[in-house]
Amino acid sequence: MTRELSPAELRQAIRSGSFRGNTSGLAPGFVQCNLTILPADQASDFMRFCQANPKPCPLLAVSAAPGDVCLPLLGDIDIRTDVPSYRVFRDGELHEEVADISSHWRDDLVVFALGCSFSFEEALLADGLDVRNVSEGVNVPMYRTNLDCTPAGAFAGKMVVSMRPFRAADAIRAVQICTRFPSVHGAPVHLGDPALIGIDNLGAPDYGDAVSVADNELPVFWACGVTPQVALEKARPPFAITHSPGHMLVTDLRNSQLAVL
Amino acid sequence: MTRELSPAELRQAIRSGSFRGNTSGLAPGFVQCNLTILPADQASDFMRFCQANPKPCPLLAVSAAPGDVCLPLLGDIDIRTDVPSYRVFRDGELHEEVADISSHWRDDLVVFALGCSFSFEEALLADGLDVRNVSEGVNVPMYRTNLDCTPAGAFAGKMVVSMRPFRAADAIRAVQICTRFPSVHGAPVHLGDPALIGIDNLGAPDYGDAVSVADNELPVFWACGVTPQVALEKARPPFAITHSPGHMLVTDLRNSQLAVL
Repeated sequence: MTRELSPAELRQAIRSGSFRGNTSGLAPGFVQCNLTILPADQASDFMRFCQANPKPCPLLAVSAAPGDVCLPLLGDIDIRTDVPSYRVFRDGELHEEVADISSHWRDDLVVFALGCSFSFEEALLADGLDVRNVSEGVNVPMYRTNLDCTPAGAFAGKMVVSMRPFRAADAIRAVQICTRFPSVHGAPVHLGDPALIGIDNLGAPDYGDAVSVADNELPVFWACGVTPQVALEKARPPFAITHSPGHMLVTDLRNSQLAVL
Repeated sequence: MTRELSPAELRQAIRSGSFRGNTSGLAPGFVQCNLTILPADQASDFMRFCQANPKPCPLLAVSAAPGDVCLPLLGDIDIRTDVPSYRVFRDGELHEEVADISSHWRDDLVVFALGCSFSFEEALLADGLDVRNVSEGVNVPMYRTNLDCTPAGAFAGKMVVSMRPFRAADAIRAVQICTRFPSVHGAPVHLGDPALIGIDNLGAPDYGDAVSVADNELPVFWACGVTPQVALEKARPPFAITHSPGHMLVTDLRNSQLAVL
């Protein structure tokens, strides 16, 4: 797998089964999405949950009708085959991890594609900032907070945040850069003292890996796409499908097209 | 003095000598400026100093030629009479404080009008943020930092900053709001640990008054218009005139007109 594949070529490799890996760093410059698929019975509540919590759940596209496998706004996509790895949940429990959901497809399923931090990390890197999880080659550290999401039906829970440390001037620059990208989590939700949002120990993230934080740096916290996954697990819908962590839906949208300014 | 005077009416009251007070809160919605007046021999270095240090020295207008008393971009202004109080410096020393500089005017003087924090404070207040120096009814606390300005000729020195405390979410919002106003100091230059920019004691500002900072708040620091005044005092030009602190040049420009977005 070279890095020069276009998003369409990469999706073709995924569709044909020749690529099933992590999509981080692939098709640079193009938007990658978190994926949630739910039966129509739960879909409208989930959509309201996203609408009410746009920072952790920035909705980039929804399928036009139940059973529809296309997301034409994002590219020539068949959602049953174009993600390298899926997780299938039954009654809120992880049931299996598969490379193709054609055999699981139902005519009542609704597809949700949500913005992901890869897009804003690219903008931060392009500005010369050190994104610690990238420079240390690990997954970004993520933490459960004491910040309540606005509930919608069975979907509810605390916000999960990702953390990247910066010196103050770079933290200010990061706020400016990410403000331009509201559809991929937007500006940070917190910076400074982790305890103020219910995080006891930066060295022990709830998801991902710890990164180093220098004495002259502030931890900066962004709303994270794990939030809707946690809400999904708590809501325990009878059936649901998500992408596997790091195995994203790669789209034809350019990250720069998401900039509002 | 009512608050309903237009900027032109307020300047007329100042010009006629019927108002000589602090302009804070007057002509709300309109831009007020810091004022520096220098002989042409020093003016080009000062202009380069402003250009090289736009955050502390945001230049809104310069007179068109030495000796020119007008600033048509800012209103129908006679700079000799339209500021309520002036400070006259000789060889860097405060010589006198006067209400009119007509008798001091020289045909080699160049006028510099610089943006002031009143404009961005108005934008913060309009967004519902608590601007502590306003809510506590005191002057904003200002501090000398260890941040070097870029020198130009004899003009040099450390940056002076103003401080307003906010909870993290409001600090992030303040970065967003002030980013829209680069010509009135723009986004903060620092937030969090004061020691990182050479400030030992928030309770003992070098200028202005201390304000309360709650445990769950971060101090947020903006480049301050006192910076060019300090550079001016250190450069010790043979002759200079500034406004007296708080006694600003009130212009016909609306604060909203300074927004770049």
